[in-house]
Amino acid sequence: MSKVIDYLNAKQEQARQELFELLRIPSISTQKEHGDDMVRAGQWLQSRLGQMGLAAEIIRTERHPIVFAQSEPQAGKPTVLIYGHYDVQPPDPLDEWESEPFEPSIRNGAIFARGASDDKGQLMCHVAAVQAWMATKGDLPVNVKFVVEGEEEVSGDSLAKLLRSDKARLGADYVVISDSSQLGPDAPAITYGLRGLVYIEVILSGPAQDLHSGQYGGAVANPANVLSRLIGGLHDEQGHVMLEGFYEGVKPIDAQEREALAELGCEDDKIRKTIGVEALSGEEGYSNRERMWARPTLDVNGLVAGYIEPGAKTIIPAKASAKISMRLVDRQNPKAIAESFKKYFRERAGAGVSVEFIEHGLAKAVLVEKSGAGIRAAKRAVEKGFSSPVSFVRTGGSIPIVSLLAEQVSKEILLMGFSQPDDNAHGPNEKFRLEDYHKGQLAAAYLLGELGRVET
Amino acid sequence: MSKVIDYLNAKQEQARQELFELLRIPSISTQKEHGDDMVRAGQWLQSRLGQMGLAAEIIRTERHPIVFAQSEPQAGKPTVLIYGHYDVQPPDPLDEWESEPFEPSIRNGAIFARGASDDKGQLMCHVAAVQAWMATKGDLPVNVKFVVEGEEEVSGDSLAKLLRSDKARLGADYVVISDSSQLGPDAPAITYGLRGLVYIEVILSGPAQDLHSGQYGGAVANPANVLSRLIGGLHDEQGHVMLEGFYEGVKPIDAQEREALAELGCEDDKIRKTIGVEALSGEEGYSNRERMWARPTLDVNGLVAGYIEPGAKTIIPAKASAKISMRLVDRQNPKAIAESFKKYFRERAGAGVSVEFIEHGLAKAVLVEKSGAGIRAAKRAVEKGFSSPVSFVRTGGSIPIVSLLAEQVSKEILLMGFSQPDDNAHGPNEKFRLEDYHKGQLAAAYLLGELGRVET
Repeated sequence: MSKVIDYLNAKQEQARQELFELLRIPSISTQKEHGDDMVRAGQWLQSRLGQMGLAAEIIRTERHPIVFAQSEPQAGKPTVLIYGHYDVQPPDPLDEWESEPFEPSIRNGAIFARGASDDKGQLMCHVAAVQAWMATKGDLPVNVKFVVEGEEEVSGDSLAKLLRSDKARLGADYVVISDSSQLGPDAPAITYGLRGLVYIEVILSGPAQDLHSGQYGGAVANPANVLSRLIGGLHDEQGHVMLEGFYEGVKPIDAQEREALAELGCEDDKIRKTIGVEALSGEEGYSNRERMWARPTLDVNGLVAGYIEPGAKTIIPAKASAKISMRLVDRQNPKAIAESFKKYFRERAGAGVSVEFIEHGLAKAVLVEKSGAGIRAAKRAVEKGFSSPVSFVRTGGSIPIVSLLAEQVSKEILLMGFSQPDDNAHGPNEKFRLEDYHKGQLAAAYLLGELGRVET
Repeated sequence: MSKVIDYLNAKQEQARQELFELLRIPSISTQKEHGDDMVRAGQWLQSRLGQMGLAAEIIRTERHPIVFAQSEPQAGKPTVLIYGHYDVQPPDPLDEWESEPFEPSIRNGAIFARGASDDKGQLMCHVAAVQAWMATKGDLPVNVKFVVEGEEEVSGDSLAKLLRSDKARLGADYVVISDSSQLGPDAPAITYGLRGLVYIEVILSGPAQDLHSGQYGGAVANPANVLSRLIGGLHDEQGHVMLEGFYEGVKPIDAQEREALAELGCEDDKIRKTIGVEALSGEEGYSNRERMWARPTLDVNGLVAGYIEPGAKTIIPAKASAKISMRLVDRQNPKAIAESFKKYFRERAGAGVSVEFIEHGLAKAVLVEKSGAGIRAAKRAVEKGFSSPVSFVRTGGSIPIVSLLAEQVSKEILLMGFSQPDDNAHGPNEKFRLEDYHKGQLAAAYLLGELGRVET
């Protein structure tokens, strides 16, 4: 093992140059004019993974290519699927960048570039780790597969389709994903819980067109009033969601987990200042960390009806619509909740208002058992790589592909994020600390060793 | 009198062309980019009223100009103030128009254009009538004043200021306003009641910027959820408005009026079909006509928060706002209701949400005595012009300036509307029937004759 680590310590400059090459490709998945850059980024990865001795290929999809690579399968070794994505967010607002988003620049011990931490830098930690094993041992302690998609930032479904159509190819004992954050410097973390998602747009239609609110007001159901009433009824005064069956599958947070979460420290003041509100608030009986990580929610993401330009127009709107997302935890069933949501609106809209829906996504929550062999191996690996104790955390966000990986590939999902909460993923001046890039490589290398020793 | 009528019958095409000229000017008072069009529309009217021998001028205001014109005052004749407005509502939604909103087009015996019935077409009935008297008799049976404002659709207060500062100039024995509807084809009506208005925009602000709904959802008050809850709480299940003190000054509808309103016949089916809803609904214990004419209301006119483009974005919106109008009756006090409305939102918004308001207009309701000499003359004029018996009606709409005119100028407010209930004022494909345009001119011409004969 020490040879592998020595190799990574010696090759830091080379690893940096390789990451720079990938960061220079503006692989913005949402912008059509970058279609060729997407292809270039995929080819660069195929070539890099091929050079180190993996069988690497490009899988064409209806949208952006998927890069798939694997080591020569060896019986008796566990298989590890490493997931990453090579696409990035647009760099806007451009004028807030201190250096070019697609010309990486090192300042204050960090690499600044779009994609530095999300997710090219984190992905390249694993590439460097596999390279180090191959270069020093000529072999790997586990069977390795890489699957790197180009549609993560656009919620594309090409990888989901591949997962369903060619499950065997992606089959593995463990799935490793580095696309999340540590708690802070010297405070590495492994994420064991992701919230699920139900996202539905509800559209209420009343009169065939906007009506004069003086002429008809009082005798016609106003879709905007009705929508407000129905959304208002979705929570009670204690902040509980009132949909029938919503809490089925939600487990009480047990005393042990409560304590563990509390031990991470209260960050309410910090959060309050960061987001600029006078007070945090939410469901009664829970800490804010519990509310954000371990409790389900229902939030309006968008709301529109009638006249929304400046000034006044006196109308009863013909339509009113809301985009509503629910974050799920534990074993909540997205399909059942989507049905309950629709039923709620259909049954209560009342006379003169019809209801339609557009589904924008369903994903189950992911909760990894902390007692599993894989997550314990990951903990050891990250602690060795970062020379710091690891915290187990949840996150309030959803990564829809993860629930599918958990369902289709393996329940042992190892979410080991190497970035920092202030790395500005999606914002200007995205960065990845050099220290995190290097320690991430060490952790990734240790992980392969640890998983190779696990009794399966 | 027959010469005047013959003149109007002979000049129908010319009257149509004149109206078309005015309709082609997109005088949208609420949109700043149409400031020049407002000036053009005012100048067009000044010029038209000047041509027929009135002393016509433009009165500058802080916002949109007022057109004022008067005939040479003659002692012993009563004075009639004709009120109209040259401003129009925005044409949105544009894609629902079958022809250009500002290029009038004749289809099925009607003129289609924004402002065709509200109020350019109705105003031009009076212009044509005065023109006919002047052209055939060289004189008028009454002293005529025109006051045409450009802020009716934005609840502007320039005319109100003028009324208060220069009451003498606008002084008159009768005020005539054609800015309302008949009951239907061959069913002309004179309006004796108008609802008042309180129109307020409420803006709720939460976090300093949109937040990731996964990361923070559950621990932050979502302004769109809060707004929905608060709007939802503004009505009870029977359709009553729940604001404190809202029903103060509302008189029960007496048996006699109830009967008179019922005698106008039930039009629920017709209305239902016109506006395209399966069922009408509203406050319990009242007919739909009573709900629309004689009961107060509260309607959301516009609602907006967060992400409203197609597709999904997972955010907690930083802001949520609603434009809410209330229609008032009888002696409801607009100021007191505005205060109660603001108090409701301020007291209930809760932690982490701040509240602001924009007032878009306050007006008292108006109720005219049906026994007055003017209203009886108006009845005769309309019956001659339309060759049909006239009904006395109320309307659900508000003309804020009318309560002030009643207070400052004359209690004899003659609300003779020439448009149809399905003319789509404020909506797409607004129209004015050619027949109503012509008969409106006849009624307006007869009115001057009738008022000239009334003993004052």
